[in-house]
Amino acid sequence: MFERIGLFARTSEPRILAELETLMAFLQANGRTVCMDANCASLLGGPEAGVKDRPDIGHDCDLVIAIGGDGTMLSAARLVAGYDVPLLGINLGHLGFLADILPNEISTTLADILAGHFIEERRYLLQSEVVRDGQVVQVDEAVNDVVIQKWNIARLISFDTFVNGILLHSQRSDGMVVATPTGSTAYALSGGGPILDPSLDAMALVPICPHTLSNRPIVIDGNSHLEMVVGTGEVDHARLTCDGELMAKLSHGDRIRVRKHRRYYRLIHPASHDHYAVLRAKLHWG
Amino acid sequence: MFERIGLFARTSEPRILAELETLMAFLQANGRTVCMDANCASLLGGPEAGVKDRPDIGHDCDLVIAIGGDGTMLSAARLVAGYDVPLLGINLGHLGFLADILPNEISTTLADILAGHFIEERRYLLQSEVVRDGQVVQVDEAVNDVVIQKWNIARLISFDTFVNGILLHSQRSDGMVVATPTGSTAYALSGGGPILDPSLDAMALVPICPHTLSNRPIVIDGNSHLEMVVGTGEVDHARLTCDGELMAKLSHGDRIRVRKHRRYYRLIHPASHDHYAVLRAKLHWG
Amino acid sequence: MFERIGLFARTSEPRILAELETLMAFLQANGRTVCMDANCASLLGGPEAGVKDRPDIGHDCDLVIAIGGDGTMLSAARLVAGYDVPLLGINLGHLGFLADILPNEISTTLADILAGHFIEERRYLLQSEVVRDGQVVQVDEAVNDVVIQKWNIARLISFDTFVNGILLHSQRSDGMVVATPTGSTAYALSGGGPILDPSLDAMALVPICPHTLSNRPIVIDGNSHLEMVVGTGEVDHARLTCDGELMAKLSHGDRIRVRKHRRYYRLIHPASHDHYAVLRAKLHWG
Amino acid sequence: MFERIGLFARTSEPRILAELETLMAFLQANGRTVCMDANCASLLGGPEAGVKDRPDIGHDCDLVIAIGGDGTMLSAARLVAGYDVPLLGINLGHLGFLADILPNEISTTLADILAGHFIEERRYLLQSEVVRDGQVVQVDEAVNDVVIQKWNIARLISFDTFVNGILLHSQRSDGMVVATPTGSTAYALSGGGPILDPSLDAMALVPICPHTLSNRPIVIDGNSHLEMVVGTGEVDHARLTCDGELMAKLSHGDRIRVRKHRRYYRLIHPASHDHYAVLRAKLHWG
Repeated sequence: MFERIGLFARTSEPRILAELETLMAFLQANGRTVCMDANCASLLGGPEAGVKDRPDIGHDCDLVIAIGGDGTMLSAARLVAGYDVPLLGINLGHLGFLADILPNEISTTLADILAGHFIEERRYLLQSEVVRDGQVVQVDEAVNDVVIQKWNIARLISFDTFVNGILLHSQRSDGMVVATPTGSTAYALSGGGPILDPSLDAMALVPICPHTLSNRPIVIDGNSHLEMVVGTGEVDHARLTCDGELMAKLSHGDRIRVRKHRRYYRLIHPASHDHYAVLRAKLHWG
Repeated sequence: MFERIGLFARTSEPRILAELETLMAFLQANGRTVCMDANCASLLGGPEAGVKDRPDIGHDCDLVIAIGGDGTMLSAARLVAGYDVPLLGINLGHLGFLADILPNEISTTLADILAGHFIEERRYLLQSEVVRDGQVVQVDEAVNDVVIQKWNIARLISFDTFVNGILLHSQRSDGMVVATPTGSTAYALSGGGPILDPSLDAMALVPICPHTLSNRPIVIDGNSHLEMVVGTGEVDHARLTCDGELMAKLSHGDRIRVRKHRRYYRLIHPASHDHYAVLRAKLHWG
Repeated sequence: MFERIGLFARTSEPRILAELETLMAFLQANGRTVCMDANCASLLGGPEAGVKDRPDIGHDCDLVIAIGGDGTMLSAARLVAGYDVPLLGINLGHLGFLADILPNEISTTLADILAGHFIEERRYLLQSEVVRDGQVVQVDEAVNDVVIQKWNIARLISFDTFVNGILLHSQRSDGMVVATPTGSTAYALSGGGPILDPSLDAMALVPICPHTLSNRPIVIDGNSHLEMVVGTGEVDHARLTCDGELMAKLSHGDRIRVRKHRRYYRLIHPASHDHYAVLRAKLHWG
Repeated sequence: MFERIGLFARTSEPRILAELETLMAFLQANGRTVCMDANCASLLGGPEAGVKDRPDIGHDCDLVIAIGGDGTMLSAARLVAGYDVPLLGINLGHLGFLADILPNEISTTLADILAGHFIEERRYLLQSEVVRDGQVVQVDEAVNDVVIQKWNIARLISFDTFVNGILLHSQRSDGMVVATPTGSTAYALSGGGPILDPSLDAMALVPICPHTLSNRPIVIDGNSHLEMVVGTGEVDHARLTCDGELMAKLSHGDRIRVRKHRRYYRLIHPASHDHYAVLRAKLHWG
């Protein structure tokens, strides 16, 4: 299985070339057709065949392999979402939550996966919309989290949060993280949020440094329609970020709607994958 | 609707008699048949008709009204679970999460409810089993939480936690709370747990004073099978409690299995009920 | 006592004029000489006498009264520090930690204070220095807190912290608050820091959303010499703020030295002042 | 220096005999006079000379060495407090905060210490008194912490806390830890308390699972007089523990007074000791 394989790589990483070459050699030795974007191809000294635009990689392949770290996986997951193609991560750094094959496991673990021995999970993305004066002015998607946050200032921002149209609370804080289960072990965790099991159909709302001390993380159903309305007086100091990337400047009255994206991504793990073992290792629960 | 109405009351509460009399008068003026247990009847000076055993109240009535506080509601919910009868709470104290009608609202809000204007929610209970030497030696149920905790000692207990048969972690702590969404605003919240929306199909695992600082609350799917195995060396200082009541002494090797009970209870709220408004009021989010 | 009285006011506050007039009338009726800055004078329609530059107010008066909120008090405290003049706050909003006389108490509580019935506390300020290439390029002071924080970006900053020349830790986080006891109930508290008693000679180091979950707030002696060194790679996204005001852009290798300022300010409270009662009221410990 | 050396050991630890023998051989080879209690002597097969009652060891020696773990150090510190004798810890397990020499460092690090190369710290103990009906009925001391806590029950206890005679708060919780800086990295840390620098003259008050979510750890001056008054209704379920050992059953109206003990203990570290490095290692701040 997995005849046509697409590659994504963090080409800025110095060690990437050696690993890409190892991977290419392995895939070719195993008779796979490989495609990649122009950056990757250029790094490899320009294979003539198999260069594609990034979105086409998701469309035309049977499996996408991302090499880098969890950051590379975030981009790759957003890119492949909507194509019915599974995604696998090779991690150049420490063990990751999303990318859980290490380079020295290519010839063993990756061989097993190509032979059909793997675990597949379906994970959801968030979609955020900024509504201004009744118009949707911006649409983004996130694998980990949608965050509204203060920017360029040392004081709080204020906003109201509605769940399925009902006011949850008016908050003054440094911001709020809306995290998927995948994102619950990223920024939301640093902000004091709970760990959500990957299989849970839920989102976590995690306030960042809330002025009201009894504001606590809240977990709502994954199918909720969430809306945050930016408070009076905010002109220049609130921003929307998705997976840590700046998406929009927010102003008073902007409505940020967040809900589950209709697209999912398919995440592949080695057959021996144990999410809790990764949790224990990464959080030093030893 | 709701022709036959059963009453549960916290009879130890001094103010209960006056409220019970008001409620009886209201229900009789509205042509309802009322039944209650012997304690209640005795307090009211003994109505001859309508005295029933507590379990029969759930079985024979169209609506059960509990008067007291959230504690009274916890008992009532465990009693009515499994009968297809809705439960309504009148709160003698402050506004509660479960009992949300105040005594002075009987003639207005309760009249509305009897006229069919209300909100109904289905909430789940937890079931816990203690397995010792391969035998189930104790079965209990909980509306808020199942807790394993240190007892009678000032040092930590140790236990392993498994989710669907997979090791989650080995923990040393004062204990761990397994909370329903209903219980997420009770003891689990004091222990640093997240608030779970009542509609969420999930349980929260909240460690109490864990020795490992990176142990954080974890939220898992409501259909998970949870098992905690009491650690080596525990002989006399670990206990199982459900909704704050002592259920079992635990020893090394005991397996405490917790999962969603197959029975639900039906909780009735006034048509104007707003869970988030109650949250804001009780947690001073003003 | 307190013959010459200086006034500071938040002149942007709409209600300030009425309160200033009441205060002026009271002070003149009680035979006090009043001085103020040009802004205040202009608001009051220009008393010819008594207009002074702000620093001179601290120098020439026996008592400074700040009218506004805790923010007004922060500016006033920085201005009077170094002059041997006590500071009193009248709070136009809710009860504050620093400004604890309400406008309607002017004729009673303020009269008592002018008659010599009051409590005086000496509180310390922090001094921060930015050292770049061996040169001190910026010196600031803070009543509440010195903060290094991420700016204009949604990812962490990294820095090393030294206490009295010894490495405490290398941290990646949204930033770190260095708070005085006065500031421990401000931003540091939202970040999860402890409350420091006003009489405690200490500073709290409170990490904001640290990547390492076991990073906890640390309290060190008030006479410690603290130094934070901005990490490799920071070029444009770390800032120094004092009491919530932007002071400096920080780059890789900048050393931010924080220690107790040699100047103190003298804070006056009514004789009935009870700091713990204010804590209970403001934090809803009811 | 340190001619006469007293030994304390956790004699229940299996590995202790080998380490004690190594230590004895080293001390005798270095011409030191060694004394110990009867337990230790019996374990070593009964040296005839040098057996003393435990309190006499503190009185008659120039240095006390405790072998075991931080628990052994807690007992040893309470025993030597009041005698002008320094205390050194050899740790059989992992690196400890108090006992920071490992067995294999005896011939090197301990030799250095005997040669006069070491760091000495003075650390304070807490004294707790239980006052009932106007009488002091119990006096205890603690190196780490004095705790009032629920016992044998799954519900909260209530108590009022006074600092220097002023009400701080009325609390309902699982209990409250009063920690020294030494104890701030023990149970108080699991309860969410801050880390206090060892050199700080302060105590931390850390509520355990407080019902009021805005109750936060509070740090007060080390010379404060603290008093906790057990609340109405507590008959059988509140206890006083010191360093994790049960000291007293508490009832309604009991006043627990906690203040700094007039005695200190002198803690010896190797010259290379770095408290922050130990913090980083033990809390996985790497």
